[in-house]
Amino acid sequence: MMNEPMQRAAQVVTVSPGTLGARILDLADRLATHSEMTGGLTCTYLSPAHRAVAKDLQELMQKAGLEAAIDAVGNITGRYRSATPGAKALIVGSHYDTVVNAGRYDGRLGILTALAIAEHLHKAGQALPFHLDVIAFAEEEGVRFSAPYIGSSAIAGRFDQGLLQRRDTGGMSLADALREVGSKPEDIAALARRPQDLLGYLEVHIEQGPVLLNGNLPAGVVTAIAGCARHQVIVEGSAGHAGTVPMALRRDAAAAAAEIVLALERRCSAEPGLVGTVGKLAVPGGAINVIPARCELTLDIRAGEDSVRAAAERDVLAEIARIAARRGVTADVLELSRTPATSCAPRLQALMAQALARAGVEPLHLPSGAGHDAVMFSGVTEMGMLFVRCGNGGISHDPREIVTADDADIGARVLLDIILSLARP
Amino acid sequence: MMNEPMQRAAQVVTVSPGTLGARILDLADRLATHSEMTGGLTCTYLSPAHRAVAKDLQELMQKAGLEAAIDAVGNITGRYRSATPGAKALIVGSHYDTVVNAGRYDGRLGILTALAIAEHLHKAGQALPFHLDVIAFAEEEGVRFSAPYIGSSAIAGRFDQGLLQRRDTGGMSLADALREVGSKPEDIAALARRPQDLLGYLEVHIEQGPVLLNGNLPAGVVTAIAGCARHQVIVEGSAGHAGTVPMALRRDAAAAAAEIVLALERRCSAEPGLVGTVGKLAVPGGAINVIPARCELTLDIRAGEDSVRAAAERDVLAEIARIAARRGVTADVLELSRTPATSCAPRLQALMAQALARAGVEPLHLPSGAGHDAVMFSGVTEMGMLFVRCGNGGISHDPREIVTADDADIGARVLLDIILSLARP
Repeated sequence: MMNEPMQRAAQVVTVSPGTLGARILDLADRLATHSEMTGGLTCTYLSPAHRAVAKDLQELMQKAGLEAAIDAVGNITGRYRSATPGAKALIVGSHYDTVVNAGRYDGRLGILTALAIAEHLHKAGQALPFHLDVIAFAEEEGVRFSAPYIGSSAIAGRFDQGLLQRRDTGGMSLADALREVGSKPEDIAALARRPQDLLGYLEVHIEQGPVLLNGNLPAGVVTAIAGCARHQVIVEGSAGHAGTVPMALRRDAAAAAAEIVLALERRCSAEPGLVGTVGKLAVPGGAINVIPARCELTLDIRAGEDSVRAAAERDVLAEIARIAARRGVTADVLELSRTPATSCAPRLQALMAQALARAGVEPLHLPSGAGHDAVMFSGVTEMGMLFVRCGNGGISHDPREIVTADDADIGARVLLDIILSLARP
Repeated sequence: MMNEPMQRAAQVVTVSPGTLGARILDLADRLATHSEMTGGLTCTYLSPAHRAVAKDLQELMQKAGLEAAIDAVGNITGRYRSATPGAKALIVGSHYDTVVNAGRYDGRLGILTALAIAEHLHKAGQALPFHLDVIAFAEEEGVRFSAPYIGSSAIAGRFDQGLLQRRDTGGMSLADALREVGSKPEDIAALARRPQDLLGYLEVHIEQGPVLLNGNLPAGVVTAIAGCARHQVIVEGSAGHAGTVPMALRRDAAAAAAEIVLALERRCSAEPGLVGTVGKLAVPGGAINVIPARCELTLDIRAGEDSVRAAAERDVLAEIARIAARRGVTADVLELSRTPATSCAPRLQALMAQALARAGVEPLHLPSGAGHDAVMFSGVTEMGMLFVRCGNGGISHDPREIVTADDADIGARVLLDIILSLARP
């Protein structure tokens, strides 16, 4: 019985279906008016468009009753403050920078969902036993300085100070870019939150893939953010005249590469949650009448579980060696990068599944193949992610990226439900 | 008995093994000193190096007792004149232009073999019942005006007058390039030989492939010059995030292209004398983390028999359509060019095989996958080709192109034997 008053307090808030979704899409349209390009949306880190979005978000947060400020790295942090003594903070956020010629929901959907919820809580006068920190991260895509997660890494206490000397393609260092907009790089270190002050981290994001779309589901529970191993493969065989070298005597680098492409595809199709991509493939200086002496390709292998990815990687590399040996070519494999998988907190996954079920949505669990700001909070605090369906075949990083108001609304109501669930003692 | 005196006359000529081969390689080294590049051999049509080679060849022919002249298109024609009334001409030739950074034997081996034989016949005072026309064709590779066979087409009566307006990359037309060196383009038409004046056409050429090398044979009989069909294939699927689109939902243009590469290879490996090559292969603007939306490739299919090539082409194009349909991508196939196969005269093939056998060489018959000046004489007169072994794995169009003096010698002795065989009534 002791919990009853608080539970009721948490359930005071109700929201009419459709309200939050419409608000979120309106705000996404509004933010998309700030762009570096005409006829499309580009908003890279610390550009004038980026600064305009920051100012807009700060004002929106302030109107929603949040204590809002732009921090030293460009994040907008808005606190819906709790009166509870010793309250911890629940961070709900995502990023507001974009790729070049972007859609308007990647990153921003998560910020605006949190903002719409905060507006609603504020209007309803709803008290929470924790601070609700809505954070719009300044940089996640890594476009300007070829380094992702600049904003979230600062809050998570993982900012790499060495990045301050990293230069953009125009030759300006990150430190100078920050100073140019009036920020103090030396203040970034102090942005780090202490784990003991945090209740958790939640992020709503568009799926950027077709799984929910194909499953006819508006939202789903993210199990993990996939780990990723990337390799470059250079195949070298022998050039030859396309007319004069019999098939049996060829050492064709492109044919060997073709086998590698299909071997990767076959191996990664064998298990759910595993994906493999050859994104670059080229015969440099190829001519129609010359047997390729060289073919270059890249491998990108991802899985929500590191053991699954590692096994696939081993098998694919072994198969590459077999293909090369059989064809009398060489295949040099260079590891480019390796990121381990990040699991979402089981407790938050369970809460999300319950909230989805209450919203009438079958709770599908799916890994995220793309990286997100949430990765930075793994190991710092409990982290959870909710995916919202991506329309148009799952296209993202593209102007054709779509989220419907109905889906944004379900995402927001589910997130609100989770926040209220966490508010129960 | 009536034939005896002539047969004996034809067999008066003998040649010490090694003499002709050494002479041919010396002359190839001498011609290679004229080049447009330092440290390598480039000799393109009507360049100063090309003109220097022409002058050198004319003088060599004159010293060999030939009536030698540089004609309106840049060919050097050298006649070892027959005293026989109404004598026809046997043309023995090849080309003296080269590709960029070429080997020194492609084309020139055939000219110098004919020249060395003419020198020998002249020295021996050997009479022939036909004119022996040693012709060094000015242009076969097609480098400067993107048009091959300019020299041999003029002699064969197939010169395309429209080419005179064709411009090189510097903007100069063929007509102006000819005038610049003192030639009269309007005289080219008159270079055409009348079929009734010709006894036949013979060409010695390096194989430019590894068949003789692998067969441990110094020379072989060419059966036909392969026909060739070329296509461009553009595969279009759907772009997608390399991490977020499950394998089963992808429409990956590069994976479809890889299947096409292997389908071509498999089909063309199924029959001897058939070859298929994907020389160009590329994902334009590919990125390591993006599923390829587009992949471009070329197909080059060749065979000595048109029916064999056409069947392979049909099967490969049908397979491309099946691959595209199964993968949900499109594959647009554009025909770029189509050249029928050219057969060598059976009578000349038989003479060559007999001459090879007399030289102690097992007579291997093989098709030529590359085009040669001989193609121009098909349908004009009887045409035959003798291939000489290409060392170094069969590499050609490359400074590493090699012919040994021993092999050049056997090629020359076999050609001499054939000429003497033709001299028998």
